[in-house]
Amino acid sequence: MRKPSLILAALCLVTAPARAQDAAPESAPSPNAIIDMAPEKAWVRIPASDVLVMTLEPGPKGDARTVIIQLMPVPFSQGWVENIRTFARAKWYDGITVNRVQDNYVVQWGDPNYDNPEAEGEARALPDGLRNVSERHYSVVLSRVPIPENAPSPIQTCAAEDTACLSKIIDDAQAFRDQMRARQLRFPNDPYSHQTRFADGWPVATDLASFQAWPVHCYGMVGVGRGYSPDTGSGAELYTVIGHAPRHLDRNIALVGRIVEGMEHLSSLPRGSGALGFYTEDEFGKRTPIVSVRIASDLPDADQPAFEYLSTESDTFARYADARANRRDPFFILPAGGADICNIPVPVRRTADAAE
Amino acid sequence: MRKPSLILAALCLVTAPARAQDAAPESAPSPNAIIDMAPEKAWVRIPASDVLVMTLEPGPKGDARTVIIQLMPVPFSQGWVENIRTFARAKWYDGITVNRVQDNYVVQWGDPNYDNPEAEGEARALPDGLRNVSERHYSVVLSRVPIPENAPSPIQTCAAEDTACLSKIIDDAQAFRDQMRARQLRFPNDPYSHQTRFADGWPVATDLASFQAWPVHCYGMVGVGRGYSPDTGSGAELYTVIGHAPRHLDRNIALVGRIVEGMEHLSSLPRGSGALGFYTEDEFGKRTPIVSVRIASDLPDADQPAFEYLSTESDTFARYADARANRRDPFFILPAGGADICNIPVPVRRTADAAE
Repeated sequence: MRKPSLILAALCLVTAPARAQDAAPESAPSPNAIIDMAPEKAWVRIPASDVLVMTLEPGPKGDARTVIIQLMPVPFSQGWVENIRTFARAKWYDGITVNRVQDNYVVQWGDPNYDNPEAEGEARALPDGLRNVSERHYSVVLSRVPIPENAPSPIQTCAAEDTACLSKIIDDAQAFRDQMRARQLRFPNDPYSHQTRFADGWPVATDLASFQAWPVHCYGMVGVGRGYSPDTGSGAELYTVIGHAPRHLDRNIALVGRIVEGMEHLSSLPRGSGALGFYTEDEFGKRTPIVSVRIASDLPDADQPAFEYLSTESDTFARYADARANRRDPFFILPAGGADICNIPVPVRRTADAAE
Repeated sequence: MRKPSLILAALCLVTAPARAQDAAPESAPSPNAIIDMAPEKAWVRIPASDVLVMTLEPGPKGDARTVIIQLMPVPFSQGWVENIRTFARAKWYDGITVNRVQDNYVVQWGDPNYDNPEAEGEARALPDGLRNVSERHYSVVLSRVPIPENAPSPIQTCAAEDTACLSKIIDDAQAFRDQMRARQLRFPNDPYSHQTRFADGWPVATDLASFQAWPVHCYGMVGVGRGYSPDTGSGAELYTVIGHAPRHLDRNIALVGRIVEGMEHLSSLPRGSGALGFYTEDEFGKRTPIVSVRIASDLPDADQPAFEYLSTESDTFARYADARANRRDPFFILPAGGADICNIPVPVRRTADAAE
């Protein structure tokens, strides 16, 4: 007997071909069906200046390999994000390689002669104008921590010298703590923070004691390689997560974006057999060359790819997140009743029109 | 300036080569250093009858590709585990292929002509003696739910008709609930269950209302593909997790083991571009053939690979888990203060001696 092809149908990106005799039982829509029904106004255009187009050398059979990275918006990690734009505009990334692929952890790319004990030549000089960003920018101070569950909540920051802004934050913090106490609100179950939530399209964790928020290490997030503290990395070496969310890296290293297309070109690369997944000398041939990295807004209009994310403040996203936490589509027999934030990936889609 | 090669040193399997001028600051041992210091008695031999040796066709450059799967012990999923031994002994798996690779989700292998809308030929007949296992075996009833934090706790089950055993469970449950109330114990933060813990080397979640326990979908866990409920799968199609833990599958599908060696041979396979990551007709050439699957105890003594896991009831494991949740080794500046269960992988090692 043939069974439906929906073996392990969860998380499907498209609906598998159904057969009349194998029709799924009637049930609630899947998370992806909910996304498909989203009204146009629930989609938010990603600014072209936040889109990086990273072109890898073609694959073994000549197939094109393009990876699209969405850079993180204000208020997170802007010093490093600006450095990445500086590297891209200086074409510094052109000709670097993927040097490290560690299973269930990260893929890392950079100058093979930089930060590498196996360096064969001289490292290329860094471009002018890079900022040295301090560790305190791994997280941001919140001006107002939202009540959990869908509260509208712009996250704001103060300049260090802006005492009026800072004292407003302190007042807000006190007011929020009082409110929490009065309401006895319970936080979602996150082992790594007091509360996780989505803000402006990004997964964020918060600490209500220090009143801080920070982006979290989910699959496909992009971060900045660094040496030992106090080094925070310049942006010359970047990595992406290719396994279970390494949340212990949160607030220990800068996150600057996420991969929104072409992830499979990195996640399926051969693993390195050296320490930390670096390719050993015998494996230098496995290093994937990066032909170029460009900011989409620097490309000719006709060549600019355009992307949208599903507003995390939209009703559709709330329904989608609920469906991820409580799968009621036909394959499932027992909804989980919860989900961790990295199991609710923010939907991103490519749009037909060129950038604004 | 060259910086140490310890960029993203977290989770390193070995210590990167250190240079005198780049010596790490003094700090607490890393999780891996703690494992290296484990006394021999903390390691538990995995029975050879629980070890599957899956040999893939050699890689593109003729490199051998062997994947080792540890089957799950009593009391979990034993009906399916026994079926898998039946398939292996009938050599039914020999010549099947990897048919599905879905990024950040699963790799799935089976008969390409079984459960496949693109089937080119007839599916092979199933071996005799397979059991049809019911959905209630996705979890087990606990005879005694442990106090969190390192309580010794053999998990036991009752036969449905064993009323004496069942009433003992009910009494124990009541006693446990009273104990919980008296102690006001707090559960670790798991969005998917009341409590997660390790039992006999495996990550387990528990529900204190229904008094059940079940294994959880972490990276590298192996499960049984199935059709729509009430089908529970025979074991003819297996999958492993190659991304963030899809915990919503817990209790919706049977877990039967985990990959303890050779994971990279599956996780780095090219992704399928069809629905659910199945290879499309154009991509049939990407299907990786599985040459053979054998139970280690069925191999000649000299050919039996031997493995040990770090006892999850050992002091070393407690220190290791604590270090995973609170990284104090040199790379880290801020310990997380917690970890989810899938971010505490159970250490497994190959041992030199042949099986017992």
